[in-house]
Amino acid sequence: MSSEKADLGNGKPPMRDALVAAAFQLFLERGYEQTTVDDIVALAGVGRRSFFRYFPSKEDVVFPDHERCLADMTAFLAEGSDDDEPVRRVCDAARLVLRMYAENPTFSVQRYRLTKQVPGLRAYELSVVWRYERALAEYLRRRFVARRDGTLQADVIAAAVVAAHNNALRSWLRSDGQDEASATVDHALAYVQSAFGGAPVPLAESQPEDVVVVVSRRGAPLWRVVQEIESTLGRA
Amino acid sequence: MSSEKADLGNGKPPMRDALVAAAFQLFLERGYEQTTVDDIVALAGVGRRSFFRYFPSKEDVVFPDHERCLADMTAFLAEGSDDDEPVRRVCDAARLVLRMYAENPTFSVQRYRLTKQVPGLRAYELSVVWRYERALAEYLRRRFVARRDGTLQADVIAAAVVAAHNNALRSWLRSDGQDEASATVDHALAYVQSAFGGAPVPLAESQPEDVVVVVSRRGAPLWRVVQEIESTLGRA
Repeated sequence: MSSEKADLGNGKPPMRDALVAAAFQLFLERGYEQTTVDDIVALAGVGRRSFFRYFPSKEDVVFPDHERCLADMTAFLAEGSDDDEPVRRVCDAARLVLRMYAENPTFSVQRYRLTKQVPGLRAYELSVVWRYERALAEYLRRRFVARRDGTLQADVIAAAVVAAHNNALRSWLRSDGQDEASATVDHALAYVQSAFGGAPVPLAESQPEDVVVVVSRRGAPLWRVVQEIESTLGRA
Repeated sequence: MSSEKADLGNGKPPMRDALVAAAFQLFLERGYEQTTVDDIVALAGVGRRSFFRYFPSKEDVVFPDHERCLADMTAFLAEGSDDDEPVRRVCDAARLVLRMYAENPTFSVQRYRLTKQVPGLRAYELSVVWRYERALAEYLRRRFVARRDGTLQADVIAAAVVAAHNNALRSWLRSDGQDEASATVDHALAYVQSAFGGAPVPLAESQPEDVVVVVSRRGAPLWRVVQEIESTLGRA
């Protein structure tokens, strides 16, 4: 078991893990602003050069896995086929981020508290979130290239997916990592999928063979028609 | 006419306007990084203290109107009544931001080009966008307080509205401020309103009295039903 634990880094060099562990120990003991890179390398027992080989700045050690996760997400989207329903595919891509957080709940919850306290880290986090959103939007733009409003739809759906994911992530972090992370994110993403298509949200489980007839004026707004269907089916 | 022009700042002190004008002249001539606050105050003919009375940092002079616009948006949302359709209200709030940009197309286009070149300004802009998004989400959370998934829906819709607005804003900026800004943003926001309700998006203008009949199995996913309606009406 303990050898498995040592392998948890999954190909990440042990020195990198040691730097992250030392940094977080000091951030929690002294505060983020009061900790210098020199303090971190002293505790980890390595030189400054080693720190900067792995992390461009002190901020980067707070989010050590985002670069890998962004690369994983980009690869996952690139591997998809044209048969994939696009909205579902970006939702599945977003799940990779939650999975990264859920791999190490204690670390994720500590970082969440730290990030809330340090404005500079909030700004860093926003830039990371923005890169995830761009990766999803770029994928959707490619998939929607033939649509008249393809870039608009891609940008809006990517933002909605990221917002739903982050809502679920924050709620999981606020539960101190106790909630079931994947159920929380599934629920949040189902809302986006129901709004933009791509998700089989069952209207009603009980009478699958019923037929629903909706009659509407052609001039009626689409949302009104949908509202009508929803209320007929008792889903509103 | 010229006295009206002098009043364009709308209550803003002339010294503040002079500092913004001097800053942008230098940013365009020398580049943002190469311009110091000392250079700006020298050209504007005022002291350093005057600069910092209006702007906490050099970055803030690049976005001189966002604080006012955020305050306007917050006030606009607070003034609303419970009769306002919530999604429509946040769309109208987002229009205030576009209007601020459209008030001064030349300045907005210059800033757009500058922001694209300077990573620090991109980060600053992300934090501003995030504050707009939070203002919209806070409003929606209050309006959706009785809904089971109120905070989730509020966060997702706020993000979608901001993404649609920014898509329209960027397309207007790329047109060098030549396109009709309000038509562009109306079109973008209509997409969000059609996805989340609250907007009378006309299905077809030509035959307003036609009747559409949709027959669907009760077990069919809602998005499939909507797709059916859209393709029947030739809107897909």
